[in-house]
Amino acid sequence: MENNLITPEPIAIGEDERESYENWGFADTAFAVNERGNVTILGTRYELSGKELPRLLPWIREVLNVNVDTSDVFKSSYPTAVPAPVRNEDFLDHITKTITADRISFDDEIRLRHGHGHTQEEMFAIKYGRIGRIPDFVVYPISEDEVAELVTAADANNVVLIPFGGGTNVTDALRCREDESRMVVSVDMRRMNRIRWIDKENMMACIEAGAVGRHIMQGLARYGVTMGHEPDSVEFSTLGGWIATNASGMKKNKYGNIEDIVLDVTVVGSEGKLERRKPSPRESTGIDLRRLLFGSEGTLGIVTSAIVKLFPLPEVQEYGSVIFPNYESGFAFMRDLVRESTPPASCRLVDNLQFQFGQALKPASESSLDALKGKAQKFFVTKVKGFDPYKMVALTLVFEGTRHEVDGQKRDVYRIAKRHGGMKAGSENGRRGYQLTYSIAYIRDFLMNYHIIAESFETSCSWSDALPICVNVKKRLLDEYAKRGLPGRPFVTSRITQLYKTGVAIYFYFGFYFKGVDDPSHVYLELENIAREEILANGGSLSHHHGVGKIREQYLPEIMSEAMLKWKGDVKRALDPNNIFGVGNQKLGRGC
Amino acid sequence: MENNLITPEPIAIGEDERESYENWGFADTAFAVNERGNVTILGTRYELSGKELPRLLPWIREVLNVNVDTSDVFKSSYPTAVPAPVRNEDFLDHITKTITADRISFDDEIRLRHGHGHTQEEMFAIKYGRIGRIPDFVVYPISEDEVAELVTAADANNVVLIPFGGGTNVTDALRCREDESRMVVSVDMRRMNRIRWIDKENMMACIEAGAVGRHIMQGLARYGVTMGHEPDSVEFSTLGGWIATNASGMKKNKYGNIEDIVLDVTVVGSEGKLERRKPSPRESTGIDLRRLLFGSEGTLGIVTSAIVKLFPLPEVQEYGSVIFPNYESGFAFMRDLVRESTPPASCRLVDNLQFQFGQALKPASESSLDALKGKAQKFFVTKVKGFDPYKMVALTLVFEGTRHEVDGQKRDVYRIAKRHGGMKAGSENGRRGYQLTYSIAYIRDFLMNYHIIAESFETSCSWSDALPICVNVKKRLLDEYAKRGLPGRPFVTSRITQLYKTGVAIYFYFGFYFKGVDDPSHVYLELENIAREEILANGGSLSHHHGVGKIREQYLPEIMSEAMLKWKGDVKRALDPNNIFGVGNQKLGRGC
Repeated sequence: MENNLITPEPIAIGEDERESYENWGFADTAFAVNERGNVTILGTRYELSGKELPRLLPWIREVLNVNVDTSDVFKSSYPTAVPAPVRNEDFLDHITKTITADRISFDDEIRLRHGHGHTQEEMFAIKYGRIGRIPDFVVYPISEDEVAELVTAADANNVVLIPFGGGTNVTDALRCREDESRMVVSVDMRRMNRIRWIDKENMMACIEAGAVGRHIMQGLARYGVTMGHEPDSVEFSTLGGWIATNASGMKKNKYGNIEDIVLDVTVVGSEGKLERRKPSPRESTGIDLRRLLFGSEGTLGIVTSAIVKLFPLPEVQEYGSVIFPNYESGFAFMRDLVRESTPPASCRLVDNLQFQFGQALKPASESSLDALKGKAQKFFVTKVKGFDPYKMVALTLVFEGTRHEVDGQKRDVYRIAKRHGGMKAGSENGRRGYQLTYSIAYIRDFLMNYHIIAESFETSCSWSDALPICVNVKKRLLDEYAKRGLPGRPFVTSRITQLYKTGVAIYFYFGFYFKGVDDPSHVYLELENIAREEILANGGSLSHHHGVGKIREQYLPEIMSEAMLKWKGDVKRALDPNNIFGVGNQKLGRGC
Repeated sequence: MENNLITPEPIAIGEDERESYENWGFADTAFAVNERGNVTILGTRYELSGKELPRLLPWIREVLNVNVDTSDVFKSSYPTAVPAPVRNEDFLDHITKTITADRISFDDEIRLRHGHGHTQEEMFAIKYGRIGRIPDFVVYPISEDEVAELVTAADANNVVLIPFGGGTNVTDALRCREDESRMVVSVDMRRMNRIRWIDKENMMACIEAGAVGRHIMQGLARYGVTMGHEPDSVEFSTLGGWIATNASGMKKNKYGNIEDIVLDVTVVGSEGKLERRKPSPRESTGIDLRRLLFGSEGTLGIVTSAIVKLFPLPEVQEYGSVIFPNYESGFAFMRDLVRESTPPASCRLVDNLQFQFGQALKPASESSLDALKGKAQKFFVTKVKGFDPYKMVALTLVFEGTRHEVDGQKRDVYRIAKRHGGMKAGSENGRRGYQLTYSIAYIRDFLMNYHIIAESFETSCSWSDALPICVNVKKRLLDEYAKRGLPGRPFVTSRITQLYKTGVAIYFYFGFYFKGVDDPSHVYLELENIAREEILANGGSLSHHHGVGKIREQYLPEIMSEAMLKWKGDVKRALDPNNIFGVGNQKLGRGC
C-alpha cells in the first residue's frame, strides 16, 4: 500500500477565513438591515451575499404577529466578563518545556470562545449574560506526541483537558461545569489539520483530527476524491468533532454517516496512545473499542487522527425539487422512495412554514422579467394546479453519482412523486435550497439583535412515529407558548432531513419574539425541553446527530435501563480513572 | 408502531432437524464411500444428497499426491472421556427453584457438545484425543428473566456462564480454559428462539438470540421479508452467535453485515438487563455500549434478543458465473466492479485449485447427453477460447433485488468481466457453486476418517495487499510443509468472498494427508499459525468474520497498541468484575 500514497501539501489558511468570536461563522458575513429598512447579507462569500431580501422582515412580522422594530436593537455586551484563570504551575512547567509560547494562550476572549458551542443559551450568555466557568488556558498541539505529552501532564497534575474542534456543537458540550475547581485546559486541535496521506488505490485517507470540513473537501477534491461527509456545519466543524458527536452528513444516502465513513481512529487516552497497526475494510477482532469514540463527546480521550473511506468525486451532481400539496403527501412519497428505490444523495422535505420562509429569503428580483416569471409560476401552481400556498410543501434533492445512476434515481423520484401529487419545481429551486444551508446559519445572531430567539433541535424515529411527532411537537409548543402568555406567535417548523430503511430524521426550528420576557434564554430552554419530552413520549430518539452533551443528559435515564447507565459510568471510570477528560458530558464526569 | 405488529407463531422444530454431536451438521447427512469405492452423500437434504461423486477421490489423490486408501479408516473413538462435573450446590439450589428439571442437564455427551465449536483441533480432540475441561452443566433458559436469574445466581456464587448458540464457531471460543476451577455452566439459548414481532410498516423485527438462522429465514419469509444475513453456517448458527462473533453474511453487498443489520441489542450483564426503550433508525446519544457486544464472544454478557432491519424478499433472485483466464484477471475485474458499479448481493472468486475442486464434486452424469454437453463445453473453453485448465478461475454470483436492479447489475458485471477476459459460464454453474456451500461443510469430517485434516481460515485486507497475501500464504505453507517432510503435497487454495470499497475478504482452505504424522492436529495448528503470521506481515487483518476466541488471541498485541489492549482489559474488569462471563476469550478473562 505504502507505495501508492499521495502526501498532500499542508493546508494554507487564508486571511479571509477569519471566524467571528461573537457570532456564527466567518467574520466577513452577517445579516444586516440596510438604509431602506430591508435585510441584506454583508460580504461576498455566499450566493445571497450582497443581496437585499425585501420580503424577509414583513414575513417575520406576519408569522410572529409582532411589529418587529429594527430601530429597537437589543444591544450585545459581548464579551461577557470571564473569571480569572486557575493556574496549575506544575502542569504549566511540564508542558511549556515542549509546547512553545506561540501555541498557548491565557487571553480572555480566546478562553471565552473555547468555553462554548452554539446553543442559543451559550450565544445569549456571551452577549447578554454570563457564561460562568470557562477554560483557564488554551493550547494548540501540532502532533500526536504533543497531545500525548499534554495527557501525561494532565494526568500527573490533576488537570482537565477538553478537546476543541470547530466549536459548533449545539449541546453545551464544551461548557465547563461550574463546580470544576481544577485547572481546565482547552486543547484546540485545529493546528493538527493535515491530510497525511491519500491512497487512491484503496480509496482511503489518513486525516488529522483538527482538519476542518471545508479544508478536507478542498484538499481531497484536488486529487479527485471526497469523503462525502457534509454536515450543515462542514465549513467549521472538524473530523475529530464529527467523530466525537457521531455526526451525520446531508449526503449520507450516498456516502454514509461518520461511523460508516471512518475506518480507524487513533486516540490518546489516559493510558496512552490507542492505535491499530493497519486499517481493514471490515473485521472481527473482538470487542471494538474504537467504536466507543463515536459520540464520546470528549469524555474518553482526544482523537488525533482517523483513516476514512474515499469516494471518487461524482461524475454528475444535479439538484432537483418537487412541490407537494401537503406535508403528508410529501412524507408518503419519501416512504415509497425508500421502499422502492435508492434515494438520491440528499432528500429533504420542508413543511409549509419553512417553504414560506424559503420564499421570504428570495432576493429582490434583479429584473422585471424575473418578477413576472415568479408571478406567472405562482399563478400556475396555485390557480391552475390548485396548490394551497398555506399547505404546500417542498422537497429538495441532490443527486450525485454516475450519469447512469443519477438518471435512474431521477426517473424513480419523479415517477413516485407524481403518484403522490408532486409537481417538479426545477433544479434551480433545489440548488437554492441547499445553498441556503450555509448562509441561513447566520440569521440566528441577526434575529437576536431584534429580540427574536431561535434555535433548532432534531430527532430520529420510525416511519410510523414521524408524522405524529411533527404534529404533536408543534401543537405542544403552540399550546405551551400560549399558556405562558408570551408575545405574538412562535415560529415552529419541521423538515425531514434524512431517510433510513426503518425511519427518518426530523429537524425542528423554533423561535419567538422575546421583548418584555424575563430571562428569554431560559424560557426557550424550558420550551425546548417540553418539546423533547413530547418527542420522547411519541417514540422519537434523544438525538439523531446533535448529541447529548449537557443539554440532554437529564433524559438519558428515560431512554436506557439503569444497568446500561451504570455500564456507561463503569466504562468511563475504568478508562479515565482520574477524570482528566473531565468535560462532564453525558453525566459521566465528576467535574468540569 | 405497536398497532402494526405481527406476532408470528413459535417455531416448531421437526424430528428431521436433529443435529449430529460427533460431526458437522444434520444427523441425516454425511459423506460416505459406496460399494463401488466412490464418494456419495447420504440422506436427501441437499441437492447433492444421494448423488455419487466418482471424480472426487481420484482428484484428491492427485492433488495430495498420496494414494488415499478408503479401506484404511482412521477410527474415531468419539465420545472422548470427559471429567466429572464440578458442582456448586448453592448455585444449583438457587436456579432449580425457577428452572425446571427438563431444562437442565449433567449428561456427559451434552456437556461435551457444549464445550467446543468446529475448529479442526476441537473436532480432532473429541474423536481422537481429549478435549480437557468442558462445561459442568447445561441449562436451557426460555426467557430474559430466567437469563437474568442465572446471571444473578452465578454472580452470587462465583459460577462461570458461557452462552451457547449454534456451537459452530471456529475460534475455540467455547473451549474452557484448563485452569478454571469454578463451576462452568453452558447457557444454551436455543429455546429462546421466537420472532417476537415483525413490523412491516417500519421494516424491523424483534428476534430472540437463540433463534437459528434457518428458522429466522423461514419465519420471516412467511411474511414476505428477510433480514438478509446468510453466513455459511446459517443452518445452525444463531442470532446471538452472529452478534457475539461479528458475523458476515454472504449477501452483505445487498443487506450489510450483522453490525449493519442489528438496530438494537438487549443483553444481560453482571449489573442487570441492559436495554433501550425504543430502537431508532440512527442516533447520537453518547457512547454506544451496545456496539461493544459485536465481537464480544461471550465475555461481557448474554445477548437475549435483538431488533433487526428487514428487507422485502427480493422480486428476483438469479445466479451467474464467469470464468477468467487466471486469478489476477478475475481479481482485477472485482476491483473495477466495486469502483464502477454496485456489486450483486454475492460475488465470489475461487482460484484454480478450488475451481478444480468444484469440478471434482460434480456427480456422475445422469444421462449421456449431459456427459456429451460437459465434454463439448470443456472443449470450447480450453481449445477454442484457450483457457488453461490449470490456470482458469471461476466467479460465482447471486443477484437479488428488483428486476430493474438485477438487470442493471448483470449488465455491469458482464460488461466489466469481458474487459478482463471473462467469459459467461451460465447461471447453472453459479447456482451449483452456492448450493455447494452447505453440503461441502460435511466433507471435513469425512476426510478425517481417511487421514486427511483440513480447515479454513480467513482475513480481510486492502485491495493492494490482497494478491500478495494470496500468493505469499500459499507459498509459505508449501515451503513449510516441504521443510517438515510431511506426506505428499498439501491442499491450499484461496477465494475472494467479500468486496468492500477499500478491500476484500479472503478465505483459505488448507489440508493435508497425515498418516504417519505425530499429533497431526497440532502440526496443522502450527502451520495455520505460520499462515496467520504471513497474513499479518503482508497487511491482512487478524480475522474478517471468524473472530479471535482463543485460537488467535496471541496475535492481539501485534495488531493494537499496548494502551488499547489495556483498555480492553479495563472495560472487561469494569463490566464484569467477578468474571462470571469467564469464557476467557480474547485473553480478557481470568479463568475459563
